[in-house]
Amino acid sequence: MDRKIYLETVDLETARTILHKKFIVSYKHQIERISVMDALSRVTAVPVFASISNPHYNASAMDGIAVKAQSTYGAHERNKIVLKEGIDFEYIDTGDHIHDGFNAVIMIEDVYPNEDGSVSIMKPSYPWEHIRVVGEDIAVGDMVLPSYHKISPVDIGAMLSGGITEIDVKRKRSVGIIPTGTEIVNPGSELKPGHIIDSNSRVFENMVLEAGGIPNRYDPVADNRDLIKSAILHAVNVNDIVVINAGSSAGSEDYTVDIIRELGEVFVHGIAIKPGKPTIIGQIKGKAVIGIPGYPVSAFISFREFVVPLIHGAYNTHIQDESIVLSKRIVSALKHKEFVRMRIGKVGDRLIGTPLSRGAGVTMSLVNADGILSIPKSVEGYEAGSSVKVELLKEVNRIEQSVVSIGSHDIIMDHLNDFMTKDKIGFNLSSAHVGSLGGIMAIKKNEAHISPVHLLDEETGTYNLPFIEKYLNDQDILLLKGIKRWQGLYVQKGNPYNIKSISDIIKHKLTFANRQRGSGTRTLLDYYLKKEQINSEDIVGYKRELTTHTNVALSVQSGNAQVGLGIQSVGKLMDLDFIPLVLEDYDFIIPKKHVDTPCVQAFLNQLKSTAFRTALEKLGGYVVEDFAFVENT
Amino acid sequence: MDRKIYLETVDLETARTILHKKFIVSYKHQIERISVMDALSRVTAVPVFASISNPHYNASAMDGIAVKAQSTYGAHERNKIVLKEGIDFEYIDTGDHIHDGFNAVIMIEDVYPNEDGSVSIMKPSYPWEHIRVVGEDIAVGDMVLPSYHKISPVDIGAMLSGGITEIDVKRKRSVGIIPTGTEIVNPGSELKPGHIIDSNSRVFENMVLEAGGIPNRYDPVADNRDLIKSAILHAVNVNDIVVINAGSSAGSEDYTVDIIRELGEVFVHGIAIKPGKPTIIGQIKGKAVIGIPGYPVSAFISFREFVVPLIHGAYNTHIQDESIVLSKRIVSALKHKEFVRMRIGKVGDRLIGTPLSRGAGVTMSLVNADGILSIPKSVEGYEAGSSVKVELLKEVNRIEQSVVSIGSHDIIMDHLNDFMTKDKIGFNLSSAHVGSLGGIMAIKKNEAHISPVHLLDEETGTYNLPFIEKYLNDQDILLLKGIKRWQGLYVQKGNPYNIKSISDIIKHKLTFANRQRGSGTRTLLDYYLKKEQINSEDIVGYKRELTTHTNVALSVQSGNAQVGLGIQSVGKLMDLDFIPLVLEDYDFIIPKKHVDTPCVQAFLNQLKSTAFRTALEKLGGYVVEDFAFVENT
Repeated sequence: MDRKIYLETVDLETARTILHKKFIVSYKHQIERISVMDALSRVTAVPVFASISNPHYNASAMDGIAVKAQSTYGAHERNKIVLKEGIDFEYIDTGDHIHDGFNAVIMIEDVYPNEDGSVSIMKPSYPWEHIRVVGEDIAVGDMVLPSYHKISPVDIGAMLSGGITEIDVKRKRSVGIIPTGTEIVNPGSELKPGHIIDSNSRVFENMVLEAGGIPNRYDPVADNRDLIKSAILHAVNVNDIVVINAGSSAGSEDYTVDIIRELGEVFVHGIAIKPGKPTIIGQIKGKAVIGIPGYPVSAFISFREFVVPLIHGAYNTHIQDESIVLSKRIVSALKHKEFVRMRIGKVGDRLIGTPLSRGAGVTMSLVNADGILSIPKSVEGYEAGSSVKVELLKEVNRIEQSVVSIGSHDIIMDHLNDFMTKDKIGFNLSSAHVGSLGGIMAIKKNEAHISPVHLLDEETGTYNLPFIEKYLNDQDILLLKGIKRWQGLYVQKGNPYNIKSISDIIKHKLTFANRQRGSGTRTLLDYYLKKEQINSEDIVGYKRELTTHTNVALSVQSGNAQVGLGIQSVGKLMDLDFIPLVLEDYDFIIPKKHVDTPCVQAFLNQLKSTAFRTALEKLGGYVVEDFAFVENT
Repeated sequence: MDRKIYLETVDLETARTILHKKFIVSYKHQIERISVMDALSRVTAVPVFASISNPHYNASAMDGIAVKAQSTYGAHERNKIVLKEGIDFEYIDTGDHIHDGFNAVIMIEDVYPNEDGSVSIMKPSYPWEHIRVVGEDIAVGDMVLPSYHKISPVDIGAMLSGGITEIDVKRKRSVGIIPTGTEIVNPGSELKPGHIIDSNSRVFENMVLEAGGIPNRYDPVADNRDLIKSAILHAVNVNDIVVINAGSSAGSEDYTVDIIRELGEVFVHGIAIKPGKPTIIGQIKGKAVIGIPGYPVSAFISFREFVVPLIHGAYNTHIQDESIVLSKRIVSALKHKEFVRMRIGKVGDRLIGTPLSRGAGVTMSLVNADGILSIPKSVEGYEAGSSVKVELLKEVNRIEQSVVSIGSHDIIMDHLNDFMTKDKIGFNLSSAHVGSLGGIMAIKKNEAHISPVHLLDEETGTYNLPFIEKYLNDQDILLLKGIKRWQGLYVQKGNPYNIKSISDIIKHKLTFANRQRGSGTRTLLDYYLKKEQINSEDIVGYKRELTTHTNVALSVQSGNAQVGLGIQSVGKLMDLDFIPLVLEDYDFIIPKKHVDTPCVQAFLNQLKSTAFRTALEKLGGYVVEDFAFVENT
């Protein structure tokens, strides 16, 4: 079996320089002439100069009368001046032309008509008063817009008012997108194990639209050298840029690089970035041909770095300019520049950033990302608490209106986010699931507004308060109580092993799906193990740590494990059987200093709403009592 | 003549409440089902839940071999373990299905093939290593997106990967746009005095597109009650929202309010905002009918406040959250809430804001606005130097990469801006024209990076340096010298009055177009007047102050004045005759602390470029010498 393994990588900066020299420089000069009326979001290729002035005549700024200023001098409440129509004045509406001889306008409110058609005035006017003189807004020859300006609705208005009806803009570039892979199927197809839904080409298509290009997406091509070659040849003939997705690495079925080399030229194969390393930059018939890796996050980063600039015809260096404080240590290798997706929230006056999953296959890390931290190749990482600059992907307003929740996982947090976004534009709930103890630590370090927790204190048999006393005694804390939820065992439908308690796991040597240390559910498990004198080493799967109820339930559902411990609502969602063990308190820790902030108030309103109570009933496994704050002492 | 004059205004908040109750509440529930593939920029109407997990099977995360982890335990460089294909392992590519019985993947790099088809390994693997387990990215039932979420390309990818192909989104709303006014002509028409180019309806059309609605723009309708009525009736039948532009006030030809009252209901006529006061909110057949005033800035503000929220189906309160320091005092009346367009730049670590023209007819104040300051009804204004919150209209990055220039006017500043935007995405030059002395004051208060100046010192006959010594002696200042420009008199083509010097203005009693106090050109004029012993009171037009060379030249060109003093390049642009008087120094003041900032360096690079020198030659009236910095002492 012939398997090439390694790529010879170049640095990001080198790849950018090649992209610039080979393509962007020549793309810069491609322009097209379009109607100003169709110019929204297009980019000017050259400056736009006004061809007429606006106003193009001396125009009345008011409804009233046009007068000669000189003939009004001396007018006063006790010295009315009478003006004759046609001689001393003309009635005039806003926008009307000021005829020669007149040089001021008196507002209709200040004009007192007499019976003979003349009018009296009681105030003088001064030359050019209430007149919009020629060019007051735009003068002929004025530069209305500079080059490379993205055109907005008001720009269109200004150009039209300046007499411009056609302009030169950067030509739209077409991007041929070829998904490849025998395993790739169209969305909506019947799925078999090994099938992958073609989502990347749809993401690319829409990234092209957003960047102002023209996407031409082709149907997926199987892993067959000839088929891929002919697809590339066709795409090169009808597009400015061609993107081949997956097959860009050096594996046994990675044909792209050889095909490009055969038909044209390969400039780069492998770039020292993560994710996105197996990217190809080449040309065929002078057209840019880019090979993009298959993992969704790698694909996104690679497309954004190497295809979007070709569409813009300019290298838009993403601007890292928002300072955030890291809530966690981040380690990165010296062999590449790494792009880390970050969740960012504002707590107190600091923006706090937490890295999202760094897996290249985790699409949701892109959906949930508020920003991107790039870690230079020469940097090994950053310590928790250090301040770093990031590029924001969402509006800073939106980020600042997030309630930052760090703590225990529950799907009700997703529903609370939904209720918040529905209620008021801007507010939202950003939840990180690090377990209850992690939540308490986040509150201690002032990195969260709220923390949902469900920690059982073995000694007292009470929930949460003992932990607040222990860890948060230096802060004024409110604990919001009111929600209880059922914890129990997930087993496959029909309970094939007839499990009734935790000890049954040992009995049948079943694989258990476990939660991470510090989570309330793990604390609960360990409490049961101690109580029933079970040695954790006897439990298959104990060492593999999953971080959400959902992952535990899925593990049981897919057969990767036979039993798991988790909340009833998630078991119901996954259609599992559920053996209830305990009704526990799911409380919210809220530092007093945050409770009156608008975003936390918005959260509390939703938590206490009837709509949310109805949603809980529908989910199942919750008991809602009257909400009450408990203070620490 | 029947002229109604006054509107009964309501407050903005009241207008918003009415808009919300009458329309937005019911619009919220209008949804449509669309393909996920077509969902870019649409807004979810309900939360989106995954219908399958991603991956939907246990998938290999690497190219390599699938193994049973247990069979690899103990492998070591000095203890190779041999695995047999089909029994102990299977070759597998990234994304392939892990067949039952296997539970780990070893990377191809760590696999050593033997001649008999078996392989050797030298490292153990652990359970689930290099496997993407079911639901690692998205679990079935996960909330992928909440309600009211604007869909991005990555969201589309995540939904498709979660098995979703159709979703419920907010229905797109159609907006009928009816321009009215006998004076309104289509862009490109021949223009006569009194004609107004229909630019508003084109701005609205594109604002509807940006807000995600469907615009239906109609041809302009003359000021005729029956024509307007039938246009409204037609538009109400085929649109969700109808906008009538101009005629929304209470003048003699303002028919809109009566027509709406006749056909439906008028809720509001007049809102206490500036600009935008004569706005009408009404309904016909249950459809929102909005009357929008005619001045372009009023039209924009009113459309943005009262039509855009109807398209969104939500009241998006614009967020005032960026703190800026005011460079100028702003006075506002207590009778309305005022929206002031602001130019904003970052100098040192402060964002500095300067109000742009507050005229409702000044389209360019919208094109140039970086943000909007709203002054509440109860506030009379703000002092210079006070800190206020504004809504940004441009990206904060772009604002932070502006070179802020405050000082003397010259059209070359527009060209420098053009060169800067062309050279590097992000950098730009933001020029305010307040005259040379105003520029020096801005530098004194640290409100600008650079200031172009041309102040003649009467005593020494030198330019600029004496003023720096006088006003800026507490700062380290660099003065960049190198550009000289011709100042002289603008006269109409052919010089009908045979003007040769300033004293000829008096001789022929001509109207003079004058510049504002503090400008270098005014200083020059006053120097000549003193020299020639002319009394300024003898000059017609001396008291009317224009703020740019362009306005002076236009004044002469349009016949509002016969003579003006200004720079040659602008005279040439306006096709005027020019009587040269003096070649003056046009220098740039740059505080030393700003000279090495990236944006100022970008400016200096363009200033010294050959391309710019060529542009100056083309403009005419400039002499470029070697650039040199002079320091103050």
